[in-house]
Amino acid sequence: MTIECPAPRHEDEVVLLGHGAGGRLTAELLDRLILPATGGGHGPLEDAALLPDHRDLVISTDGFVVSPLFFPGGDIGCLAVHGTVNDLAMRGAQPLALTVSLVIEEGLPLADLRAVMQSLGKAARDVGVPVVTGDTKVVGRGAADKLFVTTTGVGRRHSALHPSAALARPGDAVLLSGPVGLHGTTVLSTREGLGFESDIASDTRPLHRLVAALAPLGPAVHTLRDPTRGGLAAALNEIAHASSVAVEIDERAVPVPGPVASACDLLGLDPLVVANEGCLTAFVAPDAAEDALTALRSLPEGAQAVRVGEVLPDGPAGRVTLRTLVGARRIVDMPLGEQLPRIC
Amino acid sequence: MTIECPAPRHEDEVVLLGHGAGGRLTAELLDRLILPATGGGHGPLEDAALLPDHRDLVISTDGFVVSPLFFPGGDIGCLAVHGTVNDLAMRGAQPLALTVSLVIEEGLPLADLRAVMQSLGKAARDVGVPVVTGDTKVVGRGAADKLFVTTTGVGRRHSALHPSAALARPGDAVLLSGPVGLHGTTVLSTREGLGFESDIASDTRPLHRLVAALAPLGPAVHTLRDPTRGGLAAALNEIAHASSVAVEIDERAVPVPGPVASACDLLGLDPLVVANEGCLTAFVAPDAAEDALTALRSLPEGAQAVRVGEVLPDGPAGRVTLRTLVGARRIVDMPLGEQLPRIC
Repeated sequence: MTIECPAPRHEDEVVLLGHGAGGRLTAELLDRLILPATGGGHGPLEDAALLPDHRDLVISTDGFVVSPLFFPGGDIGCLAVHGTVNDLAMRGAQPLALTVSLVIEEGLPLADLRAVMQSLGKAARDVGVPVVTGDTKVVGRGAADKLFVTTTGVGRRHSALHPSAALARPGDAVLLSGPVGLHGTTVLSTREGLGFESDIASDTRPLHRLVAALAPLGPAVHTLRDPTRGGLAAALNEIAHASSVAVEIDERAVPVPGPVASACDLLGLDPLVVANEGCLTAFVAPDAAEDALTALRSLPEGAQAVRVGEVLPDGPAGRVTLRTLVGARRIVDMPLGEQLPRIC
Repeated sequence: MTIECPAPRHEDEVVLLGHGAGGRLTAELLDRLILPATGGGHGPLEDAALLPDHRDLVISTDGFVVSPLFFPGGDIGCLAVHGTVNDLAMRGAQPLALTVSLVIEEGLPLADLRAVMQSLGKAARDVGVPVVTGDTKVVGRGAADKLFVTTTGVGRRHSALHPSAALARPGDAVLLSGPVGLHGTTVLSTREGLGFESDIASDTRPLHRLVAALAPLGPAVHTLRDPTRGGLAAALNEIAHASSVAVEIDERAVPVPGPVASACDLLGLDPLVVANEGCLTAFVAPDAAEDALTALRSLPEGAQAVRVGEVLPDGPAGRVTLRTLVGARRIVDMPLGEQLPRIC
């Protein structure tokens, strides 16, 4: 169950698949190359940024390169809406407007493009967010793989809800709104024809209603994160790092659907590092934990919400541990990042 | 000098390169497939959209797939900043925040990525707009061509400046801030090794200062457009169509640099359909035309601003004509769109 962690390869001369997988290599690329060049990197990296001079508004952008375009439970179109809506929601915001930028490979069947755009449009209407503008580029055959979609969203924050990856505090309850591992194993199984795809489906869904349900708890909601690329392991490590706290979760409490566990066993994957697109983890003050669980469970998408752990009263800053089924403790590392390319 | 216009191919079953070239095929794809699916398409298509509930803010998104990544005068990094800043500027807005989403092909030299990101960061600093958030995806070798960059910008409108493609009026003076054809011919010449690339350079530059210089003229500035994909021909056709007016320009007045004219002659291109990334066309009330020209010429990027034509007092709605050097008139059609793929 331990995660392989070779020494970071700072001196690689080319971009590796793992640089885009949301793990340590991604963090290194950001820290060493992208953020210094663009002048960013002050403060914790959040799912969405505050808009200058308009602190009630947040903005987030996300590129989607999932392969295949269509998979059980969704497609790149609805995924591109949910992913950006959820990044806004993790900053306590409801979506206000969405933009869509397409890069299409010449030769893509128009029927596929239509199906993706209809799914995207339906997902946006279901969320209640207008697609206000977009862009379309076409590149020659072989210069892209079918279709890439970049969505950018602007959201308005709930006035009392200002969650941040840097605000987790000792004693916080760590909640999870639903089971882990569905999206990543579904896409991988579909792409590789592993056979699990008939038993599982992506959990891609919008999470803004769960966040609205948590809004009445206001400042007791310290941190929200949707564990996408890099899975729950990456999300918890980012929070532990940004908040300088130690996080411990209970393996027994983390809901892993049977087919996900089987697929992960076969693939040698830890379900904790597999991408999700329809659940969130919330760090809340201990005396608000029950109310938060009740709020999450009041909606279908949070019906299976559980408490999975806590922020330790003391412990090494940035460390995430798992109490295993047999009562041992193991460290949950930040995944290095190469195991699941093009999952979102 | 006439532009080939075969009958529109509505029944094509696959996406064609021309669907992304900013001409008639792009308009058809938008009208028939993308806008119906996403629920958009009410009102004229503008370079940037108003943000719901925040009418002082506009938002624009643009994907950049230019090949090669580096060309005389610029690269995909600064181009991605300028393109989005300029789309905001064409709605009378100054840029407030920028997001950057990368799709990188595995194997891209880190040195190339660094050079692009440094150019992007420098361009953003020069404009004075912060890069507030971003996203990085990596796809396998052969699944993308080196690097695609999508930028999204939010801008704040000048309070008195509300230009729109639908606001051109009979009698308006048609102004152009600088020479046409440089960007498209430079990229094409560099990509194909045609030899013109030593004599010309892309005009990629931000145009928001020109717009700020026009702001004191307020409502006399009816329409602003930067003639990118599809060139001046596409921009004028879009305006004539959205405003239901007839536009006439004077071939003698349109500044075409010598090397651009030579390259276009060799390639069989009309300079009017070649992409620009550093000039704008402004439709202004006739009694404000001289003040507008003075304002544009007060800045280096507008030093060569000229009046190129006018909106006819009457004439068929949506028609654009050119008075040729020999005094004849020809129709300037909306380019179909396939002549210059991956120019931006």
